[in-house]
Amino acid sequence: MHTSSRRQFLRTGALAIAGVLVARGASAQGPASAGPADPRLLDDLMAANRILADQGVVDGYGHVSVRHPGNPQRYLMSRSIAPELVTVADIMEYDLDSTAVDPRGRTSYLERFIHGEIYRVRPDVLAIVHNHSPSVIPFGVSTAPLRPLYHMSAFLGGGVPVFDIHKASGQATDMLVRDPALGRALAQTLGARPVALMRGHGCVVVGPTLPTVVFRSVYTEMNARLQAQAMALGPVTYLDDEEARRAEASVGGTIPRPWELWKKKALAH
Amino acid sequence: MHTSSRRQFLRTGALAIAGVLVARGASAQGPASAGPADPRLLDDLMAANRILADQGVVDGYGHVSVRHPGNPQRYLMSRSIAPELVTVADIMEYDLDSTAVDPRGRTSYLERFIHGEIYRVRPDVLAIVHNHSPSVIPFGVSTAPLRPLYHMSAFLGGGVPVFDIHKASGQATDMLVRDPALGRALAQTLGARPVALMRGHGCVVVGPTLPTVVFRSVYTEMNARLQAQAMALGPVTYLDDEEARRAEASVGGTIPRPWELWKKKALAH
Amino acid sequence: MHTSSRRQFLRTGALAIAGVLVARGASAQGPASAGPADPRLLDDLMAANRILADQGVVDGYGHVSVRHPGNPQRYLMSRSIAPELVTVADIMEYDLDSTAVDPRGRTSYLERFIHGEIYRVRPDVLAIVHNHSPSVIPFGVSTAPLRPLYHMSAFLGGGVPVFDIHKASGQATDMLVRDPALGRALAQTLGARPVALMRGHGCVVVGPTLPTVVFRSVYTEMNARLQAQAMALGPVTYLDDEEARRAEASVGGTIPRPWELWKKKALAH
Amino acid sequence: MHTSSRRQFLRTGALAIAGVLVARGASAQGPASAGPADPRLLDDLMAANRILADQGVVDGYGHVSVRHPGNPQRYLMSRSIAPELVTVADIMEYDLDSTAVDPRGRTSYLERFIHGEIYRVRPDVLAIVHNHSPSVIPFGVSTAPLRPLYHMSAFLGGGVPVFDIHKASGQATDMLVRDPALGRALAQTLGARPVALMRGHGCVVVGPTLPTVVFRSVYTEMNARLQAQAMALGPVTYLDDEEARRAEASVGGTIPRPWELWKKKALAH
Repeated sequence: MHTSSRRQFLRTGALAIAGVLVARGASAQGPASAGPADPRLLDDLMAANRILADQGVVDGYGHVSVRHPGNPQRYLMSRSIAPELVTVADIMEYDLDSTAVDPRGRTSYLERFIHGEIYRVRPDVLAIVHNHSPSVIPFGVSTAPLRPLYHMSAFLGGGVPVFDIHKASGQATDMLVRDPALGRALAQTLGARPVALMRGHGCVVVGPTLPTVVFRSVYTEMNARLQAQAMALGPVTYLDDEEARRAEASVGGTIPRPWELWKKKALAH
Repeated sequence: MHTSSRRQFLRTGALAIAGVLVARGASAQGPASAGPADPRLLDDLMAANRILADQGVVDGYGHVSVRHPGNPQRYLMSRSIAPELVTVADIMEYDLDSTAVDPRGRTSYLERFIHGEIYRVRPDVLAIVHNHSPSVIPFGVSTAPLRPLYHMSAFLGGGVPVFDIHKASGQATDMLVRDPALGRALAQTLGARPVALMRGHGCVVVGPTLPTVVFRSVYTEMNARLQAQAMALGPVTYLDDEEARRAEASVGGTIPRPWELWKKKALAH
Repeated sequence: MHTSSRRQFLRTGALAIAGVLVARGASAQGPASAGPADPRLLDDLMAANRILADQGVVDGYGHVSVRHPGNPQRYLMSRSIAPELVTVADIMEYDLDSTAVDPRGRTSYLERFIHGEIYRVRPDVLAIVHNHSPSVIPFGVSTAPLRPLYHMSAFLGGGVPVFDIHKASGQATDMLVRDPALGRALAQTLGARPVALMRGHGCVVVGPTLPTVVFRSVYTEMNARLQAQAMALGPVTYLDDEEARRAEASVGGTIPRPWELWKKKALAH
Repeated sequence: MHTSSRRQFLRTGALAIAGVLVARGASAQGPASAGPADPRLLDDLMAANRILADQGVVDGYGHVSVRHPGNPQRYLMSRSIAPELVTVADIMEYDLDSTAVDPRGRTSYLERFIHGEIYRVRPDVLAIVHNHSPSVIPFGVSTAPLRPLYHMSAFLGGGVPVFDIHKASGQATDMLVRDPALGRALAQTLGARPVALMRGHGCVVVGPTLPTVVFRSVYTEMNARLQAQAMALGPVTYLDDEEARRAEASVGGTIPRPWELWKKKALAH
């Protein structure tokens, strides 16, 4: 709700910055906080980081965020460290310009704009994962579309677009979504879907809860692995649209089952 | 609530329902129990769950059941949790309509009908596994038949049918065997064989003991993995029918050897 | 040196059996022992079993033996249990007919004849592994020959024959080398080489020491895995004969290095 | 015994040898030491060894070195043991002829000349890894060039040459870089690049710091694995030259993030 950066000021005018000044006292160092988040949500965000590492979706790179329940203009994400090492103390708050509310010298992920720009245009999205999930990379650089071959990945049924940063931005890049414009371009490619591949880079996975985006990340990786194997055996029968829609609805209701397992395993380390 | 009791009544007549009433006192809330099972069998069922997870056959999904030794019309299976987390306290009793004898609020696996309907038509089957074993998925969605390429998977020698839930049921589904009719269709595809693949889903594995169905699940996965690799090298020589029959008989006698190992490893966690 | 079974009696005559009777007192229950083996050798045999499991060469099946230093007509091998569980107390002594010297009710591996018959015709061989090493299986059932693609597997340079038990024995089998005649047929296919594949089954690996056969088992598996990958990329340049001969000589001298590592890791469990 | 000291004398003249005599007193048993290195550098070298094992880049073989900060004519590397077992006490000092300064009976890696000869001609290189990284081997024996398919391996953008020891040396070898001439030939093939494959053997990876060469080793392996998978899916879009240059610059700045994670994990064993 409250905003602060100079860029934002130029966009929204003086009234907004006035609101910031009220919320933060006289300080103009960053956006206002939406206040403390439920400790259970922070625990889940820490768990999501560790599960993604434990399940082989992320290595030393990748990040996961959750929208702040107290203010849809804010999201929570770790400072720039490996997901497997994230603790609750590492979690920072960002506004949708991906400016940290209270950095205190902590470094932010270069590609935090993936999160801010998707939250901005997708009110249904409450959690986001960005990863370099191994089996997914080949599908981002080939012409073979990723398609759901079993019920566990039925959420892929609406199609999986590939974001080509060069074509989308019209210019040479370092492949990183390192500014709001590139974040917006990625959000546009994603559209209303749950997953978009990123050519030569990785993918982004969105959803309504942390367990859902972790689940989708795990089974996007698994589907990519199994689809490549299936394609080598000959023609593949994928889920048809109706099957995908129905299976997603049913399987979506079972996510607490693997989440409970994954959390227990990941936090045991 | 009492649908399955009523169905059973219509099938087996008044004597059966009388027995239920006696066994449970005046309550009509569910099927009668076959009584407590041997604690060693419950331990083996818990072990089977954990071994399947430890050996990579199941992840957060999948289930394994055993027919009740005291009553062939009953089977034992965990409540709906991840196999790796199953303890003896989670094990519930079901009748062949897959109605829980004593649910006490515990959730059942949606696809328990796989078990009930196969037990109903296969008196030789005393244990069943349903899983989404990774290497098996591609064979369920391609036209390449799964065939035994070495002695360890000789039990596949009679052929491995693929259950296509859409074709078998004649209607669009959510891919899940979520009612008795779909369970019966799957049992029909399985026929007298030990393994059936399920298109876009996983497979079902049956046998005369828990160690046998665990063994068959592990080596169905292994055969699928190795067969895909072999097919990539060129033409493959599979076991012929005679070799498969003889090898299955011999190898079947050695199952206590890996079972002892798997149990020790899985329960050490 | 001493022998005892009836079959052997028919072959070598009465003088041999007399020797057995002397060595064992009046008992005629089995072959004479060559006496206790060096405890360090027994430790190495236990370690070899566990390393093979730890390195993924064996699962619940497979076996490794060593020729008895005190008598070339005897060899040492575990009773029939999973290699990962072998302790020194499980090690039994066999003559070259693969008859146990002192079974005391302990079960022997069905396929122990692989060991006895190779030791009989290969005096240079002092240790043998039989396994179902995963990546090796596909090469046993395809027409693609296993060939050394790097220095670590240079020992494969002399060619890797495939033993087809059906063709070699001229009759249908259960795929198991379950009698001396089948063992002799396998030994004949192996010839003077270090490795033979067994169609629809696994392979046998021989050498002058336990560390060497473990090393060769590990790198036969690795070569098979990497060769399959290389073949998928296009034409492959293998080591030529001269390179293989020279590399084997050099790399053979370094085996204590991985052996020390493998032993430490395997025995830490 | 003193060959390398003599070679060095001929090259660098009397002043250098005078310095050696001063530093070592009157002894002429080996090259002079550059003095003790920073303990934190030795810790990092130990960590690099263990990380490479933990990340699956090396098994019982392979080595990593760092140039001595006190004298660019010296480098530090473990005695000949498996990387996973290296402790600070195992680290030895070498001159650029790869003669150990103070061997005290400790064995050196046969292929240490890889390190000495590259340090000699690449002043920008301060750390070197030699490994048999599994997924890389197939690319060394096929005609398919290794190319960067995502930002993490952008450092491969300048091309990855393949060193064929037979062609480079003009003679049959045991595939090992076991003398200075072969080391020089390899250094020549490497040129100014960060990675060179070695046909039928492995690869060499160089860079300005230990974390960088570990990072490059890990992602060379990963790129090889993913590139092989991508090639099986159809035509592949690799990073173009501009993308590779820019991505390398950006990603290079993030190496402390995985290094911190890898170090923590590898040293926890």
